[in-house]
Amino acid sequence: MAFSFSLGARDPGSRARRGTLHTSRGTVETPVFMPVGTRASVTGMAPDEMTALGASIILANAYHLLLRPGLDQFRRMGGIHSFMRWPGLVLTDSGGYQIFSLPHERTMSEDGARFRSYIDGRYFHLTPESSIEMQTAIGADIMMVLDECVAATAPEPVARAAMERTHRWALRGLAARSNPDQALFAIIQGGLIPSLRQESARFLADQPFDGYAIGGLAVGDTRAEREDMTAFAAELLPAATPRYLMGVGTPPDLLVAIGCGVDMFDCVIPTRLATQGTGFTSTGRVRITRGVHIHSDAPLDQACPCSTCRTYTRAYLHHLLKSNEPLGPRLLSIHNFHYYLDLMAQARAAIEAGHYAAFAKQKLSEMDRHEHGEERV
Amino acid sequence: MAFSFSLGARDPGSRARRGTLHTSRGTVETPVFMPVGTRASVTGMAPDEMTALGASIILANAYHLLLRPGLDQFRRMGGIHSFMRWPGLVLTDSGGYQIFSLPHERTMSEDGARFRSYIDGRYFHLTPESSIEMQTAIGADIMMVLDECVAATAPEPVARAAMERTHRWALRGLAARSNPDQALFAIIQGGLIPSLRQESARFLADQPFDGYAIGGLAVGDTRAEREDMTAFAAELLPAATPRYLMGVGTPPDLLVAIGCGVDMFDCVIPTRLATQGTGFTSTGRVRITRGVHIHSDAPLDQACPCSTCRTYTRAYLHHLLKSNEPLGPRLLSIHNFHYYLDLMAQARAAIEAGHYAAFAKQKLSEMDRHEHGEERV
Repeated sequence: MAFSFSLGARDPGSRARRGTLHTSRGTVETPVFMPVGTRASVTGMAPDEMTALGASIILANAYHLLLRPGLDQFRRMGGIHSFMRWPGLVLTDSGGYQIFSLPHERTMSEDGARFRSYIDGRYFHLTPESSIEMQTAIGADIMMVLDECVAATAPEPVARAAMERTHRWALRGLAARSNPDQALFAIIQGGLIPSLRQESARFLADQPFDGYAIGGLAVGDTRAEREDMTAFAAELLPAATPRYLMGVGTPPDLLVAIGCGVDMFDCVIPTRLATQGTGFTSTGRVRITRGVHIHSDAPLDQACPCSTCRTYTRAYLHHLLKSNEPLGPRLLSIHNFHYYLDLMAQARAAIEAGHYAAFAKQKLSEMDRHEHGEERV
Repeated sequence: MAFSFSLGARDPGSRARRGTLHTSRGTVETPVFMPVGTRASVTGMAPDEMTALGASIILANAYHLLLRPGLDQFRRMGGIHSFMRWPGLVLTDSGGYQIFSLPHERTMSEDGARFRSYIDGRYFHLTPESSIEMQTAIGADIMMVLDECVAATAPEPVARAAMERTHRWALRGLAARSNPDQALFAIIQGGLIPSLRQESARFLADQPFDGYAIGGLAVGDTRAEREDMTAFAAELLPAATPRYLMGVGTPPDLLVAIGCGVDMFDCVIPTRLATQGTGFTSTGRVRITRGVHIHSDAPLDQACPCSTCRTYTRAYLHHLLKSNEPLGPRLLSIHNFHYYLDLMAQARAAIEAGHYAAFAKQKLSEMDRHEHGEERV
């Protein structure tokens, strides 16, 4: 069964929309948050735990998986779902952002990127075609074209050159696709320059992609710049296909972007902040390593029904984090994923009920109030 | 209810015995392996996972818990069981071994040990009395007296001095006990010198301890020396109370010691080797990071019913360990604990059936054969 996207309720007070991704592996209700499992593992979490938390699709990274375990491994083992025992969907990022971030030993050309593996020093050549070949072998339900990323704040000529190359690479990616069951999304670029975003969206929307992503945000831009550009770019994208805001973001980022009509998100924040000892709660972010929690027998979030909050005290979580016990980040990750996935479930319900605008406004005002009360991260 | 120990079946072909520890918190069937939760957490494992694996008692460490979260925390929070949400029993080690291992800034005297915290540089004074005070606050079901450890291979005058101080400290610990519900075990010392072990056992057996531990092994001794001394020392200890071999050991160590009449064990090996990527299997130790496993779609142990072996391939475990994904050590820990706890369950069943000697002989021969086939660790 080929990939398709159906639209359900629309919120009358915003551009938020309910949708469903249909694939041969199952369906995903949108708006959706995709936990990040870069190297075929969501940090510290077993797949059955992610299922129990309500995750239906995760993100993996073709660049990292190309270096290890490599293309051959996926061809032999029959794809990532079987490899990591994950029954849900997988979206793979192409590696464009990773190449952009490589500190050295990377040569970019029209053909692609040549770089040395950080694992064993071998040389790799990543092209629009080889990225699709890798994502095909991984068995991703949704593949991303290889794009050229630059800082969101890059000057116009730099942003334009990267955007135009991204367009040429998108066409090469489309031509390289071999399995029609695996969806392929394009990525619009153009930094913070509206005219470039407009040009990018127009160019790519004319091509038969299964969905469109907004790339190049959350890389040096402010929250206000990000929100403005998300609102502007989301409106440029076709309404009939899913819209994916890459690498974004915080809970407020998600609420604002959903109101702009964005359907899909991924971000490392839930596990990264868990590792640092920060939990998202109904009363704001809690940095559990602060001394104020040392004797607290309250749960991380009084209002949260997750297993961490039902079982453990802040005092114990504080102790685990201070003692570098691996159980600490794991328990905070469970909570943070519950927070993110539950927030998305609430958003979907609010859209269905036709009051997303009011819901988001109230949540954002609560979050902003708490952010200024509690420490910011 | 005060602590008691009842003896059941004895193996006709060895000195192995089945027993039961009775405490106000519940019972523990012996021989038993106690997973190590030094800082009130078994590395990476949630308490409900340990229960599901069949663990009934874990070991924590009074020295580490004294430094963090400290005595006051346990007094406020009502003990370790509530603190870490562990429904089983807890035995606490006194800190004698940790003081012995402190690299610097430690002064030993007849009174106790003075040392600086590795956490915040504060000075602490650990005495036989303060160790019991700490273990009382922790709420340990079984407490250990503070002992003075030296290398197993120490010369006679050094070993004798440490043994004699250990005896004086044991009496001080006994006098300092305030809660009769919390069992107190003595520790016999004497290195590898039989006459000292004899003297130590005679001295301590005359005192009303609830159990006796063999200390000072697995600290510089060979496997043969350890086995000989375990056999010798176990026979010296009272038959009516539990015998605990501290910090030992490998699966063969456990099988041999059970045959000598030892009832209780603890060791960090299951989690430490999991972190390094080694699993104990029915066909010997498997170092999952070896290249030979990279494409293996076999489970870690074909014969094992644990969740790791039922779910994941060696290829995936290899990938997780090579990628430093925290899920890797966690999945191997689940397996290794299953291996250890199941081995003990098999040992108990063999004692009940009256064929422990044959069981142990066969298991040891299998293990030895595999150790020489597969790499040794």
